[in-house]
Amino acid sequence: MRCDVLAVGTELLLGQITDTNSQWMGEQFAAAGIDSLMQAKVGDNLGRIETLLRRMLADADAVIMCGGLGPTHDDLTREAIAAVMGVALEFDEAVADVIREMFAARGRRMAENNLRQAMVPVGATVIPQTRGTAPGLICPVAIDGIAKVVYAVPGVPHEMKDMVQRAVLPDLLARSGEAAVIRSRTLRTWGESESGLNERLDGVIARLDGVGNPTLAFLASGWEGIKVRLTAKAPTVPEADALLATWEADVRSVVDDIVFGVDDDTMESVVLQLLRERGLSLGLAESVTGGLVAGRITNVPGASEVFRGSVVSYASEVKFTVLGVPEGPVVSEAAAAAMAVGAQRVLGADVALSLTGVAGPAEQDGMPVGSLCVGLAVGSDVRTQTFRLPGLRDQMRQMSVITALDFLRRTLLAG
Amino acid sequence: MRCDVLAVGTELLLGQITDTNSQWMGEQFAAAGIDSLMQAKVGDNLGRIETLLRRMLADADAVIMCGGLGPTHDDLTREAIAAVMGVALEFDEAVADVIREMFAARGRRMAENNLRQAMVPVGATVIPQTRGTAPGLICPVAIDGIAKVVYAVPGVPHEMKDMVQRAVLPDLLARSGEAAVIRSRTLRTWGESESGLNERLDGVIARLDGVGNPTLAFLASGWEGIKVRLTAKAPTVPEADALLATWEADVRSVVDDIVFGVDDDTMESVVLQLLRERGLSLGLAESVTGGLVAGRITNVPGASEVFRGSVVSYASEVKFTVLGVPEGPVVSEAAAAAMAVGAQRVLGADVALSLTGVAGPAEQDGMPVGSLCVGLAVGSDVRTQTFRLPGLRDQMRQMSVITALDFLRRTLLAG
Repeated sequence: MRCDVLAVGTELLLGQITDTNSQWMGEQFAAAGIDSLMQAKVGDNLGRIETLLRRMLADADAVIMCGGLGPTHDDLTREAIAAVMGVALEFDEAVADVIREMFAARGRRMAENNLRQAMVPVGATVIPQTRGTAPGLICPVAIDGIAKVVYAVPGVPHEMKDMVQRAVLPDLLARSGEAAVIRSRTLRTWGESESGLNERLDGVIARLDGVGNPTLAFLASGWEGIKVRLTAKAPTVPEADALLATWEADVRSVVDDIVFGVDDDTMESVVLQLLRERGLSLGLAESVTGGLVAGRITNVPGASEVFRGSVVSYASEVKFTVLGVPEGPVVSEAAAAAMAVGAQRVLGADVALSLTGVAGPAEQDGMPVGSLCVGLAVGSDVRTQTFRLPGLRDQMRQMSVITALDFLRRTLLAG
Repeated sequence: MRCDVLAVGTELLLGQITDTNSQWMGEQFAAAGIDSLMQAKVGDNLGRIETLLRRMLADADAVIMCGGLGPTHDDLTREAIAAVMGVALEFDEAVADVIREMFAARGRRMAENNLRQAMVPVGATVIPQTRGTAPGLICPVAIDGIAKVVYAVPGVPHEMKDMVQRAVLPDLLARSGEAAVIRSRTLRTWGESESGLNERLDGVIARLDGVGNPTLAFLASGWEGIKVRLTAKAPTVPEADALLATWEADVRSVVDDIVFGVDDDTMESVVLQLLRERGLSLGLAESVTGGLVAGRITNVPGASEVFRGSVVSYASEVKFTVLGVPEGPVVSEAAAAAMAVGAQRVLGADVALSLTGVAGPAEQDGMPVGSLCVGLAVGSDVRTQTFRLPGLRDQMRQMSVITALDFLRRTLLAG
């Protein structure tokens, strides 16, 4: 099964926005075993949209169009599809009612042109809208006597994703004669390279290749670590989930030591949850990261239940006077320990984590660029560790955030 | 002149990386008055690359191919172009020498397959490589007797950008009979909506439309404000720069009150520069932003000359005990003032900026979501202001960062 992607919108060609939709769709299709061999962007021009759609349908079994479903005169996706199908557009009263009700529910006046969104090519099936006003479309077409299909979904990413998962992927899989449900499970890892992970998982990957379902993929996420994603196909959700559970256990039996979370977990959300479960409050003392750890922590809803605050001690004197660090080299485990104890006291926190290091461009206190000293005070217990991280400035600082949080996570789990 | 874009790489179709190259090129082409009406992604498959390239050349005057120039067997851009040109690839000794020297200079052994990058279609011109190993190509083709051109540039963004600016855009402009130099100037603004900016600049835009050169574009950058970009074409760099200088003065005469910087300036780099010029050190007290202001400030190289640190007082008690804020509502101008004075004292800073507010989801201290109180202590002078910002959580927090820094910037300029 091959489904190519056609993104519609002049703003895409002018570079005013990045087309992340087709990337996301490519990822979903690959996980579902559907080929996507050409993806294109075209502007809001009926002739060019129609021509390109015809060419793409000559090669692919299906084409998904993204964007151009809105209410204005330059939203032309419906017209182009009707032309390729060789049918008229007709007004769908049921769709129009949904649009009218949506405006009424929000207490807003509906401009008449919104009803353009209720025009449907004869023979097309509507994908009901749950988040916006424009419905999606499933449009059967015959190309040289071969049955193919055009999907149309809105360009707004969350509306697009909802419709692709809810309607387009199941329809594609049904047409390809495949099982109708795709589920995936992502294990978030930190502390191992992609090639290292690959090596450790060699045996599991060989067994997975043998059965062919689920599939396993590595997704590098830069300074967020590497994701291991399992994707299972099955006739029903419980069967797919059972497959995932079995293989997740298999993967974990090999790499559980570096798995810090699953799916939408982040290192900071996991750490906050561990602290919350233990009834512990958190304080920070940041030097090299200059507030980045606190910024990440406080972006998690509910952080205020656990997080006291941070002393960003960028200047050495602030380390000495506010945190009580003894005068001396400030990039050292001794300084990190004193920073953590100082932050614990100043902020009234049960647990305090500290970071001091060298982001570059030059070395400092005889420590090379990339050095990170982490301190951790838990009650009266204080421990420290030194790490060597790659990258300059921004990359080194971001790596420091997750490295230090992982150190805290491991300590809490071991304690 | 129409130049379409063909990005080559299976990893793009699988969604493993986002194609930001074609977005960037679309933006450059639009600024230069070159149409780009179709942009496509295709995988590392010779037949499909060649077919698609032929189809694109049927419609466009030029096609720029991005990626597939590397040393491995799945780098097929050179082969596809040679096939469309109807010529052979020949080994270019000069290019090979450059590649060999590059490895020698880095003290690395050169794998033999790197010399694949020295294969050049007969009749093509080489764009010398300055940052990597693969050179770019300018390849004339005749399609149905009409002279057209194919460009090939590497997929690595900084190599691609360098070659497009240095060789592709000048060549495209020369072919279109246009002046050969494009220069642009970006004014960074904060505090006005796009429609408001448009209205204020109505007269300038009308005069610009009259002369046609330079062009003016608004680029919305979300919580980084709106950029006003002037792009001038001229036969020489000094002439283009003179045009830009004249019209920049014209634009500034209308909106100078909201221009905080130019080109690569950021709000934080501008604020640090103003403090440095005045010999003033900076401290922060952050609540709602939880360390984001400090994180942004410390990402600017040289921040340590000016920046002392930040007290991230997320819990109210930390405001009371560390900063000496009187007990009471913590989202208020009184609390913001006390936070700033406290940070100035605790951190030993000449200037201290404080932020307290409500990021949501719920209101706090009777203040609605989106409320931001900023405090600023400069020497013994203390001032405060309250803002109402849009968005929830992350957006509100990011808007708070730039709003507070702009408040500091304006105070320093007025003082």
